Amino acid sequence: MAQSILEQLDQVLAERKGADADSSYVASLYHKGLNKILEKVGEEAIETVLAAKDAEQSGDNSKLIYETADLWFHSLVMLAERGENHQAVLNELARRFGLSGLEEKASRTPSN
Amino acid sequence: MAQSILEQLDQVLAERKGADADSSYVASLYHKGLNKILEKVGEEAIETVLAAKDAEQSGDNSKLIYETADLWFHSLVMLAERGENHQAVLNELARRFGLSGLEEKASRTPSN
Amino acid sequence: MAQSILEQLDQVLAERKGADADSSYVASLYHKGLNKILEKVGEEAIETVLAAKDAEQSGDNSKLIYETADLWFHSLVMLAERGENHQAVLNELARRFGLSGLEEKASRTPSN
Amino acid sequence: MAQSILEQLDQVLAERKGADADSSYVASLYHKGLNKILEKVGEEAIETVLAAKDAEQSGDNSKLIYETADLWFHSLVMLAERGENHQAVLNELARRFGLSGLEEKASRTPSN
Repeated sequence: MAQSILEQLDQVLAERKGADADSSYVASLYHKGLNKILEKVGEEAIETVLAAKDAEQSGDNSKLIYETADLWFHSLVMLAERGENHQAVLNELARRFGLSGLEEKASRTPSN
Repeated sequence: MAQSILEQLDQVLAERKGADADSSYVASLYHKGLNKILEKVGEEAIETVLAAKDAEQSGDNSKLIYETADLWFHSLVMLAERGENHQAVLNELARRFGLSGLEEKASRTPSN
Repeated sequence: MAQSILEQLDQVLAERKGADADSSYVASLYHKGLNKILEKVGEEAIETVLAAKDAEQSGDNSKLIYETADLWFHSLVMLAERGENHQAVLNELARRFGLSGLEEKASRTPSN
Repeated sequence: MAQSILEQLDQVLAERKGADADSSYVASLYHKGLNKILEKVGEEAIETVLAAKDAEQSGDNSKLIYETADLWFHSLVMLAERGENHQAVLNELARRFGLSGLEEKASRTPSN
């Protein structure tokens, strides 16, 4: 079964929820609790904004991509901490923009 | 061809780049420029953090999902403004976590 | 009696706490509640960061001063909403840096 | 001459501008540059927002005061990095609200 990158990430994040605090970065975040996870979401948002301003000057988007990945990643940790995952967010975007969610479902069928 | 929700969104965001400022919310954001888009990314990050704190109290995640969708959406507008799209962010996440990006490529082949 | 600007502001903010929502901007913020006030604190922080980046390019600090004033102002509204004022923050800074708080008290004596 | 706490802080921040990076926390921030200082402003804004939400639940404002002091402190470092100080911000607040700035000037005369 082929999984999207976000599905694979959600699976990793779910698996690490019961792990020892020192077994991984994500496990240490869960142990520190929601406030620490939200601090990271906020920090990565600021770093994304700063990277976008620097990209505007330099024309180089590589740091912007890196920081946006950090922002999305910590958003996924936050969702996992609250018992949610990326699919709920994509469903909300699909609903809002009248988009088809067919491919998302298709990607979860046993074979392609 | 089946497209993921993020691919469909990126396509919508790319199409609106040349449009009149008053033709849509996204077109008005592009016309206001990068700073306004980054203000929205920052605002939605704060609203996501507030929604997560309220969800912690109430047990209801619906506003958290809604605000995270807003945050990701405005991140996509920021990426589009800089000539990028969601795939660059997913590729960075895949690289970082050693995940397979095969399904992403597969979803862009003409037929499933 | 001479009062510092922050003392005068705190007095204004305290006076407006019981006022009608449509009597002033501050009164409307109190009526919308703590989340709306905190959204404003977050928004002004982002606008301050953007203004600092633009000042770095242009050499003109005027927007940075304007946005920092907005950030401090909404911090004062937040403190007032929680029954606090600027003096508690200055006392914490004085304690932390081993600074004298004498002038602060002196400025509240009836005549200079 | 009696100085307000903010005046004393601005003086400390100005004195540390030429110092070795490892001589103090503030000197290390200056050496890391504007982006690092702005990251700190953003982080402290988020921590202030989280502390305010926790204070709303617990009724204890002490962490809120502590985080607001951090936010104002890093705002002052940002202003110093840009060659400004707290007085410019207070003047903007006085101008905006039609407040008297007399005491501020009086506090800078040689004797009270």
